Amino acid sequence: MQQPIAILDSGVGGLTVVKEVLRQLPREKVIYFGDTARAPYGPRTPEEVRQFTREVVDYLVQYDPKMIVIACNTATAVSLLDIRARVDIPVVGVINPGARAAIGRTKTGCVGVIGTEGTIKSRAYEDALRLLSPHVQVVSEACPQFVPLVEKGNFRSVETYEVVRSAIEHMRSYPIDCLILGCTHYPYLSETISEVMGEEVNLINSAEETAREVSAILQDQQKLAKSEHIPVHHFFCSGDPKMFKFIAQQWLGEQIELTPVIWQVPNIS
Amino acid sequence: MQQPIAILDSGVGGLTVVKEVLRQLPREKVIYFGDTARAPYGPRTPEEVRQFTREVVDYLVQYDPKMIVIACNTATAVSLLDIRARVDIPVVGVINPGARAAIGRTKTGCVGVIGTEGTIKSRAYEDALRLLSPHVQVVSEACPQFVPLVEKGNFRSVETYEVVRSAIEHMRSYPIDCLILGCTHYPYLSETISEVMGEEVNLINSAEETAREVSAILQDQQKLAKSEHIPVHHFFCSGDPKMFKFIAQQWLGEQIELTPVIWQVPNIS
Repeated sequence: MQQPIAILDSGVGGLTVVKEVLRQLPREKVIYFGDTARAPYGPRTPEEVRQFTREVVDYLVQYDPKMIVIACNTATAVSLLDIRARVDIPVVGVINPGARAAIGRTKTGCVGVIGTEGTIKSRAYEDALRLLSPHVQVVSEACPQFVPLVEKGNFRSVETYEVVRSAIEHMRSYPIDCLILGCTHYPYLSETISEVMGEEVNLINSAEETAREVSAILQDQQKLAKSEHIPVHHFFCSGDPKMFKFIAQQWLGEQIELTPVIWQVPNIS
Repeated sequence: MQQPIAILDSGVGGLTVVKEVLRQLPREKVIYFGDTARAPYGPRTPEEVRQFTREVVDYLVQYDPKMIVIACNTATAVSLLDIRARVDIPVVGVINPGARAAIGRTKTGCVGVIGTEGTIKSRAYEDALRLLSPHVQVVSEACPQFVPLVEKGNFRSVETYEVVRSAIEHMRSYPIDCLILGCTHYPYLSETISEVMGEEVNLINSAEETAREVSAILQDQQKLAKSEHIPVHHFFCSGDPKMFKFIAQQWLGEQIELTPVIWQVPNIS
């Protein structure tokens, strides 16, 4: 039986990571948990995020995965070390791969980071960047206006351009040559962000970088799948399964097997 | 005492990997072995390459490294599995990281590879690419004319353009969008190669990709250096130390500590 890669997120944003893993590692079997009933994790307390992430991981480890991927910036910022201590398989988040890609590509040594309020406030990207390279200059900006634009499907309108411009244009006064898209929703706005920042600024897409890191670590551990068969991927969600299935099929472009999971949903405190 | 990263090559080409490791991981201490007395490994038999690589690794493990990096395409193609079985620390070659970067970036699913005769004949890149992604199309070309151009410092002349054009222009008839520079010397010819292949073809520099993979694996194993001090790097070479020191200082732009090592040099059989 092929051991799967387990990927989790508060909702559907982590499907961008699934898509990249399936593209870069088409032999691998994926299981995915979207905790849609309790999404978004952003406004939750760190204790709640840690608790939810633990519950999702405990659910997924029943399927004997060979790796856990936390495909959510908030959960990575708060829970990565906690989950690492909890399981004895590799645990990969979305923050270190994005930070590493930026360090690999920057020539000016000045890296921009945009993300949700929670991610930027946690300073997780700054810590990750400085751990690798102590003298890197980091310019961060919380962009809480971006997720609603993406969720409305509003990727390229004049309104979108104006929202993006007024949020990040001031970053151009720094010698930034890499901008980390520190939220799984932001790659949908890539074209608009590029128009505002200029073509010479490299946009770092965490999903792509995370999938590459999954590949590198599995290969180092000699755990890459060798199968010639197309694996069946399995999805779980705690909220409305119809909506989840619709989005997942649209995004991944294939039939998916989905199991709804019913969990208690505490009010946001 | 900080555990170093051990990097080895048949000669000075692997210094491109050292430079990238120092750039991406400035906290890390590096030890390097250039087996210059027995370079190049290309014309040697696989048995000889395996034997030499083992000797170099056995020399370097005296210094208790936390990782071995084989910064030579020929030695990676022939010796990676052998060295992996010999030591109980991670061993990273230059082939898998380049292959992984190409899989990550290609949109057309068609990847080009150029390298020395030995590397191309070993089909090591093809195997590495297909292991990750079974349906990738690979177009390979041995370019034995390129290393002499680089060693003469002839990066941008009309002659160089003609040699490069006649060697690889025919690859443009394939939908290649990523070209792996499968020899540590080739990045010097990047501009000329880009002129011939077209700007839209992504050139994959193994040194950059290998350093990133070193970073990812060390972080997964929680073995990244945390030191704030600038480490002293240590170099060993089996051939002329003056020449080695001159090249290493020019390339790395810093004072280096060098210990010559005297070894028997068998004739090329």
